[in-house]
Amino acid sequence: MPGGYETDTVIRLETNLDDCPAEILGAAMEKLLAAGALDVWFAPIQMKKHRPAVQLSVLCDDATEAALTELIFRETTAFGLRRETITRVKLRRRFETVATEFGEITVKLGLKGDEVLQVAPEFASCRAAAEKSGQPVRVVFDAARAAWRQVR
Amino acid sequence: MPGGYETDTVIRLETNLDDCPAEILGAAMEKLLAAGALDVWFAPIQMKKHRPAVQLSVLCDDATEAALTELIFRETTAFGLRRETITRVKLRRRFETVATEFGEITVKLGLKGDEVLQVAPEFASCRAAAEKSGQPVRVVFDAARAAWRQVR
Amino acid sequence: MPGGYETDTVIRLETNLDDCPAEILGAAMEKLLAAGALDVWFAPIQMKKHRPAVQLSVLCDDATEAALTELIFRETTAFGLRRETITRVKLRRRFETVATEFGEITVKLGLKGDEVLQVAPEFASCRAAAEKSGQPVRVVFDAARAAWRQVR
Amino acid sequence: MPGGYETDTVIRLETNLDDCPAEILGAAMEKLLAAGALDVWFAPIQMKKHRPAVQLSVLCDDATEAALTELIFRETTAFGLRRETITRVKLRRRFETVATEFGEITVKLGLKGDEVLQVAPEFASCRAAAEKSGQPVRVVFDAARAAWRQVR
Amino acid sequence: MPGGYETDTVIRLETNLDDCPAEILGAAMEKLLAAGALDVWFAPIQMKKHRPAVQLSVLCDDATEAALTELIFRETTAFGLRRETITRVKLRRRFETVATEFGEITVKLGLKGDEVLQVAPEFASCRAAAEKSGQPVRVVFDAARAAWRQVR
Amino acid sequence: MPGGYETDTVIRLETNLDDCPAEILGAAMEKLLAAGALDVWFAPIQMKKHRPAVQLSVLCDDATEAALTELIFRETTAFGLRRETITRVKLRRRFETVATEFGEITVKLGLKGDEVLQVAPEFASCRAAAEKSGQPVRVVFDAARAAWRQVR
Repeated sequence: MPGGYETDTVIRLETNLDDCPAEILGAAMEKLLAAGALDVWFAPIQMKKHRPAVQLSVLCDDATEAALTELIFRETTAFGLRRETITRVKLRRRFETVATEFGEITVKLGLKGDEVLQVAPEFASCRAAAEKSGQPVRVVFDAARAAWRQVR
Repeated sequence: MPGGYETDTVIRLETNLDDCPAEILGAAMEKLLAAGALDVWFAPIQMKKHRPAVQLSVLCDDATEAALTELIFRETTAFGLRRETITRVKLRRRFETVATEFGEITVKLGLKGDEVLQVAPEFASCRAAAEKSGQPVRVVFDAARAAWRQVR
Repeated sequence: MPGGYETDTVIRLETNLDDCPAEILGAAMEKLLAAGALDVWFAPIQMKKHRPAVQLSVLCDDATEAALTELIFRETTAFGLRRETITRVKLRRRFETVATEFGEITVKLGLKGDEVLQVAPEFASCRAAAEKSGQPVRVVFDAARAAWRQVR
Repeated sequence: MPGGYETDTVIRLETNLDDCPAEILGAAMEKLLAAGALDVWFAPIQMKKHRPAVQLSVLCDDATEAALTELIFRETTAFGLRRETITRVKLRRRFETVATEFGEITVKLGLKGDEVLQVAPEFASCRAAAEKSGQPVRVVFDAARAAWRQVR
Repeated sequence: MPGGYETDTVIRLETNLDDCPAEILGAAMEKLLAAGALDVWFAPIQMKKHRPAVQLSVLCDDATEAALTELIFRETTAFGLRRETITRVKLRRRFETVATEFGEITVKLGLKGDEVLQVAPEFASCRAAAEKSGQPVRVVFDAARAAWRQVR
Repeated sequence: MPGGYETDTVIRLETNLDDCPAEILGAAMEKLLAAGALDVWFAPIQMKKHRPAVQLSVLCDDATEAALTELIFRETTAFGLRRETITRVKLRRRFETVATEFGEITVKLGLKGDEVLQVAPEFASCRAAAEKSGQPVRVVFDAARAAWRQVR
């Protein structure tokens, strides 16, 4: 495994759903995130008998696995799920604040050693500033990125 | 519109479904085809409230539109559908039979004027021959295409 | 066009986006719905230069078209959009209330003439009852459907 | 791993196919299921050189792995496949029969300990009843679910 | 139709392909673009008989329609295609050049009247600068956007 | 694991991207392939907050893992990626040349023991011949397959 990164181990739970209405799945995503899932996503799949189905994936750690597993069985139509243990390779994260014409914005940095590889304005921070100023979200994003560049 | 092709007018019915289980949709596809739809297909879409939904599309002509419209309302959860009239541009079709080591196979030709642009062995014909011979379907396809080429 | 249904005309706006981050698109969906879009959805498409892009579709009426068109240009990276006028064929809608063990639930009915073809418990109504009772949303859905059947 | 569930180990075979026509893939799905695959599904992927390709996934156990592996190589264009061993976490299954106005329907229950988390009318059972009665499949589903609730 | 925008009329050609290998489709996309298509894209669809198929869409004008129609029939397995005429609503475009630490970059502006709604660094321009400087393409994009903002 | 095949072990790197424009992803795919990835593909996924996102998958071996990992962090917006070790089961490969009316074409064969299960004309070889002859690529493919069959 390549050096210079942080690593951890997480659990991926997956299930193919061919009998669960999309509106139920949408509500399940919200509940899974609220219950501590690290990530939740859907992928379109095609199953037997001409069924345009959905694969649900949930990333979690040991502490939340039992609760999330039960949540999947309660909130969706799953009878079973697939469980895998996965290594994650990650940049070190650091948060900074930059001043823009739309106010202060939090920026998430991703570092390998001391080198900054990612500069990601926080979505919630940008949206709040966008709503206050009446500007589109993406204009605030660009301003935050530009502000961070100038400071450097 | 470019010349040299056949044209006709068909109707496309479409609806976004976010509350219909995939197994019901699979059964609906079969019923719609059995009731005379020219084509039926699903596309994965993402709707509001995090719903991984499905767009159902049905192609039909005037004679079957009323029956297919009612079928969509009966067999799926649709409350409404979008209706468009569309021009089709088509190659002229001709069917021929070719002899292969797996028996006779029907080939569908697509012509512009007198030029053959498409040579498509019929799926049902190839599958029947494949089952009889124990060969994979695609081997029969290749044999049929090769046979047609040699005759020419 | 088949009889027995309600019909109206709506406008579909569509654009292919290959340079707009997904988080910006998610925010745009929310804004478009808040601004009166009849429906908003995304479909995955594959564009030139290996780009895994997104098709944005917005359904609207005459009254909101101008505002939604401008919103698309302000909140996404679109330089242009495709505009089509489409006929909708719809069931007549009627709302009823049914009593369940989880409280009263609003049910949306879809009728062709006097025949009920659709019985759809309202999502917001079911979710509120689900949260109050601690039950999964889908259990409330099933109870509402069953209650409506029994009354009939 | 969370307690209260059944677990087993299965094998997932996967391959990316960018040179196999969809009609061949459709036939392959049917053959793989007939040969004992636990599940088979397709997912749309985008590969190099602008290819809108398909990922084939097959779930199987030790007893069928060799036959299914060979079937993939014979019935699709695969030169290789990825093989992973995966844990499954499952509800205990029990089958019951409920009486509905459309006849008896088999219902598959999913239990954690003694608690019923899933009530799934069997598709084949519902479709047979639907065909006999002339009702839409989903009406039979709803009736079966409601019948099971009432018995409890 | 809302005012303040440019409009034109284009032709959309579409066809569902369930018997064309993805590698052939990838090559067709390149040929269609080279032959003057305004845009070409693929969408994943699910067709009858369990086929994970592809919808090809081509946008063109009157001058290229005949050539592109023939190209679709020659380079793919299509026997027919759907043809629709569509209105496009567009921002006025203007190109400017901005100076960045990576050299001059062309920026495409999108205007409604005199208001700039879009600022899009040209991909080819950014990629060339990225290759010369050894920087990731997205770093050059950000620099170009920031440069344009500062000039304003 | 079934006998008669070649096997090896590869690494799959995966990351979900909800803040990376598609044009940047397209460029990243090209760079990853140029840097020695065994395969690169995108899959459409739906993430939280209504985001129509993309899953990037990269297959590599030990020798290129470090470089490809760094490339993902530099060329996309990823802060982390998932890493799995996977077994591959493969046919033995052999290349042959066949003579067609369009010139010599390289054909890749896939063998289990001494049995040929796959006959795949090389895309680059077919495209070159297609360009020289002015024929569609797929016509050259068919000719190469037919030529290989006849020799046997």
